[in-house]
Parts: sequence; structure tokens; C-alpha cells
Amino acid sequence: MNEKSFQEYYPDELSYCYGCGRANEHGLHLKSYWDGEETVATFHPRPYHIAIPGYVYGGLIASIIDCHGTGTAAAGAYRAEGREMGTEPRLRFVTASLHVDYLRPTPLGVPLEIRGKVKEVKGRKVVVDATVSAEGNPCARGEVVAVQMPEHMMPKDVTT
Amino acid sequence: MNEKSFQEYYPDELSYCYGCGRANEHGLHLKSYWDGEETVATFHPRPYHIAIPGYVYGGLIASIIDCHGTGTAAAGAYRAEGREMGTEPRLRFVTASLHVDYLRPTPLGVPLEIRGKVKEVKGRKVVVDATVSAEGNPCARGEVVAVQMPEHMMPKDVTT
Repeated sequence: MNEKSFQEYYPDELSYCYGCGRANEHGLHLKSYWDGEETVATFHPRPYHIAIPGYVYGGLIASIIDCHGTGTAAAGAYRAEGREMGTEPRLRFVTASLHVDYLRPTPLGVPLEIRGKVKEVKGRKVVVDATVSAEGNPCARGEVVAVQMPEHMMPKDVTT
Repeated sequence: MNEKSFQEYYPDELSYCYGCGRANEHGLHLKSYWDGEETVATFHPRPYHIAIPGYVYGGLIASIIDCHGTGTAAAGAYRAEGREMGTEPRLRFVTASLHVDYLRPTPLGVPLEIRGKVKEVKGRKVVVDATVSAEGNPCARGEVVAVQMPEHMMPKDVTT
């Protein structure tokens, strides 16, 4: 496993994301890594990330799939170009669509493993499959369609 | 518009949800209401609910669609049975699947309006369409497939 997460390669001005930005002090700080042909992240839900007692809130699961998906998209796009992550020009992806199937209730109180797989890289679009598991049991399956961030979304100056 | 939100009819032991539970002190406290044949909720993202500077984090959008969807499912199921919300037996829905299309970047700093529509009520399943708009512009469109919470998920005692 690579020592530096995908998100640590994001430029400073694009590192405020609530789900995975290192500069968001309130955020979830998801970190994603290569593990062979797959990508992996581990997340420890907090006690208040609850749906009904004993189970994790579905919005959190959607959120970590989303961020792991866009991270995997960036890493996969660099790999498809035969470039090291973080080299210029920088690649940063946003979500065009997100689909999550909740397979079973996700237990609260154990770490969650999110695994991603690049399904397709086509022009500015990358499709990523993801699975969220608790104690080895898949609890949710997701698909993220990510697109390279349009130039006009690039922050001119950072005010947050 | 009804004065009491759907979520205020949820039983106490099912009111801990991070997205919409009144008993979750860290949560988002989404509140959904009937507005004719549609349902509506308003949410004010906090400054840290950021994706990249100026825009709302996609996981938050997924989360409010999810909670507005399950709330709309419950309200729609009561209505389909010709019952007032909160009457016995209580109906509470969980998410089977969630799909979100991000139509355009959602601006941060303005309230978001989430509108829902019951598309289908079939047995224990309710399908809800939702749209998230900012200043009248639709930014995301979602579909929630909600199912009535299985009995075995019902909390025996509340420990959180």
C-alpha cells in the first residue's frame, strides 16, 4: 500500500472537502490508497453517525463512497496516463452521479472498509465501483460516475 | 403546509438519525413537510459543508435527499392508507437504494430546497423522486427506494 493517500496529492486550494479534505477541520478526512488493482480506505464512524440505534446512517455511507470514488477516479486517471499522482497537470474529479444499494444494515461501532475499482476511464469521465464492508461483510455497494473538474470551478482565491 | 414535520412523528427510539433525528445533537435536523402533492424541506448548509470553495459537498446533498426520501416515504405510506401520520401502527422507512444525479455545482451560502414526490407505493416499498434546488435552480435530482423498517432492526433499548 502506498504511504501517501490520494487526497494528500490534491492541491491545497482543493483540499477543503468535508468528506476528504485535509484542510477541513470539521470533516471526515477520508484517506484512500492503492491496494494492487483496487483502492481501499478505512473509516471509523463516530457514535453520532447513527441511523437507528446500532446502525450507521446511510448518508455517511453515501458520503464515503462519494469521496472514495472521486479519489479513486483521480488515481485511476493518473495511472491510465502512466503518470505519478500529483504530477502536472493536476487531476481532480467531481461527482456526476452516485448510486448506492444498501445491502444490509451497517453496524455502528466497527471500522468500515471501502474498496474501489476503476471500471472505466473515458476522456474526462471515470466510473468507479465501490463496496463498503463491516467485519468482512459487504453492507453497501456503490457506483460513482466522476468527471474531471471543469476549469470554471477552480477557486480563484480561497475564502473559507 | 402542515406545522409538524414528518420527522416529529417518528417514535423517540427512532429519532437519533444524524440526518433528521431530533435527538441527535450533532445532526442535521432535516424537517420535511407536505406541500400539496409534494413534500418540501429547507436546509442551510454550514460553511464547512464544502466540496471545493464556493460549492456544497456532494455527500451532504446525498444525505438530505436520503432523509427527505425516507420521510416522504413514511408520509406517503400513511396517506396511501388513509391514516394520519403518527397513528398506530407506526411506519418508519429505511433506504434500500439511493441515486443522485448532480446536475450542476450547488452554491454554498444559500438555503437549499428539497422537494419530494411519491412515485410508487407498493407493499412495504415506496419510491420517491427528489430535487435539490438553490435559488430556484435545480442542482441535483435523486431517487430513493425506501422500505419499511424490518422488525428485527427495531431497537430493544436505546443505548446511545
